[in-house]
Amino acid sequence: MNTMTDAAAVAAAQTDAKSFRDGLFSHGILIDTGENGLYGRSQVFESVVDGLNAAITHLGADQDPEFLRFPPAMRRTDFEDSEYLKSFPNLAGTIHSFCGNDGDHVRLLRCLDDAMKESDDDRSEEWMKYQKPTRLTLTPAACYPIYPVIARRGPAPANGHTVDVLSYCFRHEPSIDPGRMQMFRQREYVRIGSPEQVMAFRQMWIERGSLLIDLLRLPVEVDLANDPFFGRGGKIVADSQRAQALKFELLIPVALEDSKTACLSFNYHMDHFGAIWKLACEDGSVAHTGCVGFGMERITLALFRHHGFDVHAWPDDVRGLLWGDTKARIDHGLAGAAT
Amino acid sequence: MNTMTDAAAVAAAQTDAKSFRDGLFSHGILIDTGENGLYGRSQVFESVVDGLNAAITHLGADQDPEFLRFPPAMRRTDFEDSEYLKSFPNLAGTIHSFCGNDGDHVRLLRCLDDAMKESDDDRSEEWMKYQKPTRLTLTPAACYPIYPVIARRGPAPANGHTVDVLSYCFRHEPSIDPGRMQMFRQREYVRIGSPEQVMAFRQMWIERGSLLIDLLRLPVEVDLANDPFFGRGGKIVADSQRAQALKFELLIPVALEDSKTACLSFNYHMDHFGAIWKLACEDGSVAHTGCVGFGMERITLALFRHHGFDVHAWPDDVRGLLWGDTKARIDHGLAGAAT
Repeated sequence: MNTMTDAAAVAAAQTDAKSFRDGLFSHGILIDTGENGLYGRSQVFESVVDGLNAAITHLGADQDPEFLRFPPAMRRTDFEDSEYLKSFPNLAGTIHSFCGNDGDHVRLLRCLDDAMKESDDDRSEEWMKYQKPTRLTLTPAACYPIYPVIARRGPAPANGHTVDVLSYCFRHEPSIDPGRMQMFRQREYVRIGSPEQVMAFRQMWIERGSLLIDLLRLPVEVDLANDPFFGRGGKIVADSQRAQALKFELLIPVALEDSKTACLSFNYHMDHFGAIWKLACEDGSVAHTGCVGFGMERITLALFRHHGFDVHAWPDDVRGLLWGDTKARIDHGLAGAAT
Repeated sequence: MNTMTDAAAVAAAQTDAKSFRDGLFSHGILIDTGENGLYGRSQVFESVVDGLNAAITHLGADQDPEFLRFPPAMRRTDFEDSEYLKSFPNLAGTIHSFCGNDGDHVRLLRCLDDAMKESDDDRSEEWMKYQKPTRLTLTPAACYPIYPVIARRGPAPANGHTVDVLSYCFRHEPSIDPGRMQMFRQREYVRIGSPEQVMAFRQMWIERGSLLIDLLRLPVEVDLANDPFFGRGGKIVADSQRAQALKFELLIPVALEDSKTACLSFNYHMDHFGAIWKLACEDGSVAHTGCVGFGMERITLALFRHHGFDVHAWPDDVRGLLWGDTKARIDHGLAGAAT
């Protein structure tokens, strides 16, 4: 193991990431909050996100998805049921609140006053011992809140069910790489049905997702992938996920020169969520599920990386796709792909 | 003190709120998650929110606001600095995460397994002792993240500065009243400048906010108000806030028959945020701040309450304002108000 080279590679990646992030800050595209992975968004950044959302809507319109939006939190018992904590305990966020009385409040404020005598980075978090768990957690992926809600309706129709969701998600992984945020938006199409329906859906979205990225004039590379499972046992689970080809990612160079960032992912959950939340098919079998996830911030950052910080100088067809005749360009792309 | 009557009034309000919420669920406008104050949004609900946002944008366009968007979280040290915990400790949400090793993970999962043997409502939260505070908290009001960011830029220009923000906010107050959510969106215009600039801004927005609600054919009633300060000392602070006329609210009957819900608020913070974050005016004095906040879910719910669950049956001019010639109708309203 060549640790010198590894260390040098990490340092180089940090430099790449920092330099790209500095560019985003200095051009006013993202706004520095002082915290890695937590950024304000400018109007131009949000206009790219809006344009992408419109394109993704047209790309999925013929699937007649059900439109659902959830706040960035979910019920804690649903989150516990999801088994997310088995795989990614380090990434999850739970919400805590003060539930005490006047006396506790006085003590909390005294703790906080003491903490605030120190510099920001040295502040004690002692006051937070007064925070108690609430019944909510942050949403770890946009599709999580939908399964228990859909399950309660009864079996999926014979031709399956498709849902369109978008939400801010939280992952506790502070990073200097702007492509790795703690709070970011995922847009997803989710399919609930038979294994054949879900596999066909995933294949279609690998093609359509690649089409979108191609129309945005970004490099397309789809590869087998695995989730970052926690701990010593994580590698075994990751290997198994790869062996079963459950996850593919569309990778684009974003902040780093030598490694690529997953901007879309195409996931087959098999009956994992179906079994947990008793999602059923019309014939009574356990429903399988799958989803395509669009990392809205990551695709947006990829556009800034490859086309420059000035959106007015982006290629005309990219500007047209985002803010012009979006529907016509998507329809034309879909027609071309079908021939 | 007539506690019987009080109890009867509370019971009646609960019945009102539950019946309105049941209507929203049964018409598929909001989606039940099983948790009070946490709801999914349907396409029709979101289309009303989108229409309102477009109208609010036109209503403020001549103010040339800076557009800023933040994720629904802020830096914990900024949140601590804000003094929110002095006034509303019970409403704030902090974000916690697992930061342990493999062994801790095993112990966490063992706790969780035990908890999950119980029914949802009886589950132990013992596993959450492994959750540690992160450096982020949930955003309590949409404008909070902007002050430290704006302060770092240096003094406000001589004619002040106006910011347009929108964010999901968290308040820990589970309620059966759909007008009181734990996760909801606030759109705000924020003014930073001299006391005269901020007072003039607030007066203008009391008028413009009333105009918007009038154009939506909802009843307009603006009243002096106070925030729900915590604890025994809270009443004194609330009385002082009223005596200084720092807060006005636009109240509309929403879920409850006999009491009204604050759908917009018009706030003068004096130099509270300016002093905390060292926001300065061009002449070196501490900047004053104020904001108008639009409760996006509350205004949307008021529309459903007053115009019915079927948006196709809403008055033509309300539909036109939301989804038709929004700009022309707002401009016409502003011109009428100016004469």
